[in-house]
Amino acid sequence: MVVRTRDRIALTARELFNLEGEQNVAMVDIAMAMDISPGNLYYHYRGKEQLIPALVDLFEREIEQLLHAPLDNLDSLGDHWSYLYLLLEAIHNNRFIYNNLTDISQRDKSLARRFARTLALKRKTVGALCTKLSKQGHITLDAPSRDNLLDTLVLTLTYWLNYAALQYPNEDLSIRLHRGVYRLATLLAPYMNDRQAFAEHCRLLYQSQLPIKPTGAIAPA
Amino acid sequence: MVVRTRDRIALTARELFNLEGEQNVAMVDIAMAMDISPGNLYYHYRGKEQLIPALVDLFEREIEQLLHAPLDNLDSLGDHWSYLYLLLEAIHNNRFIYNNLTDISQRDKSLARRFARTLALKRKTVGALCTKLSKQGHITLDAPSRDNLLDTLVLTLTYWLNYAALQYPNEDLSIRLHRGVYRLATLLAPYMNDRQAFAEHCRLLYQSQLPIKPTGAIAPA
Repeated sequence: MVVRTRDRIALTARELFNLEGEQNVAMVDIAMAMDISPGNLYYHYRGKEQLIPALVDLFEREIEQLLHAPLDNLDSLGDHWSYLYLLLEAIHNNRFIYNNLTDISQRDKSLARRFARTLALKRKTVGALCTKLSKQGHITLDAPSRDNLLDTLVLTLTYWLNYAALQYPNEDLSIRLHRGVYRLATLLAPYMNDRQAFAEHCRLLYQSQLPIKPTGAIAPA
Repeated sequence: MVVRTRDRIALTARELFNLEGEQNVAMVDIAMAMDISPGNLYYHYRGKEQLIPALVDLFEREIEQLLHAPLDNLDSLGDHWSYLYLLLEAIHNNRFIYNNLTDISQRDKSLARRFARTLALKRKTVGALCTKLSKQGHITLDAPSRDNLLDTLVLTLTYWLNYAALQYPNEDLSIRLHRGVYRLATLLAPYMNDRQAFAEHCRLLYQSQLPIKPTGAIAPA
């Protein structure tokens, strides 16, 4: 498949923004990284104010593909686990957006509205996951608890990677993502029907899916 | 009291960074807002790379004054409520730092270490609050639940204002702060000894402290 220059620019810019921070990367850095002329770059994107909305398009395509996916196939707790892992991974791949949500929103109000829309969509999907877990007999939720739980789940999903990066800057990525899923799972703990069994199941899932053994410092309690 | 130019610069810069986003404000904007010459500004701070660590100093002084405060006086739930409100307010007053934690950390590793230290201090203080609430007979926490709860409380405390700003950009500040305290309180719900009474107490505290009545859309469930 031939990747068009326009798309190659977007992917390169995203990678540089993710690695070095959006405000530490200039348009000319992107041209240099791609070995194209600044003129060619500007032919596709007139500046960051055109590039960033294009990257938000890309992010929305990636995350909405997950958020709109049918959840019918999520049978086991392991399936739920993998699904949340993929969501966190999509956020990681677009993390410069999450690192700059407020600044980007301040510069471009239409992007602020799109971020609020994605947040609402996350809440809807996480709600559907909770409904499924209830129907599968894992958890019991009354309406006010459900409302509070969904807010906490969405806040955690949204800011987990930022928080973890502050806590342990050099953590292995896969551990960071699995630790995020584990954190989300523990938020359900108070609502589990068989708390002991569910907690044990989550702990085993966490340990089995890690590529390397976590050290004491980063293993969840 | 005479405020020194150096301190006036810091306070003006913080205000501009908070309102417009750090990366949208140049040194010359700060000089213009203060009606001083760029030369005078540069005499005090050579650039943002000197100014930002000074603002982190200011932030740390403000938040540590709260985090190190003796908690002995927190007798009623209302006292706990006010304390958490003050913590959120301190974060609000320094919100440009929270909006750019990752970018600032990427530019200056020594600041990244200081942010991690503040995070650990928050966790310690929130832990002391939970111990106090346990001793006062409000909640019961076993060790693993406590560990998970503290992480969730610190994550929520750290990112609540960013999350709320995404959700409701035009929300009244006092409502946003009280809604944050309410959100933190609801995280304790599963561990309350008398869940009904505690929940009702928190709901009343929330409603009584609001300067204006919240609309349906932003009132917590």
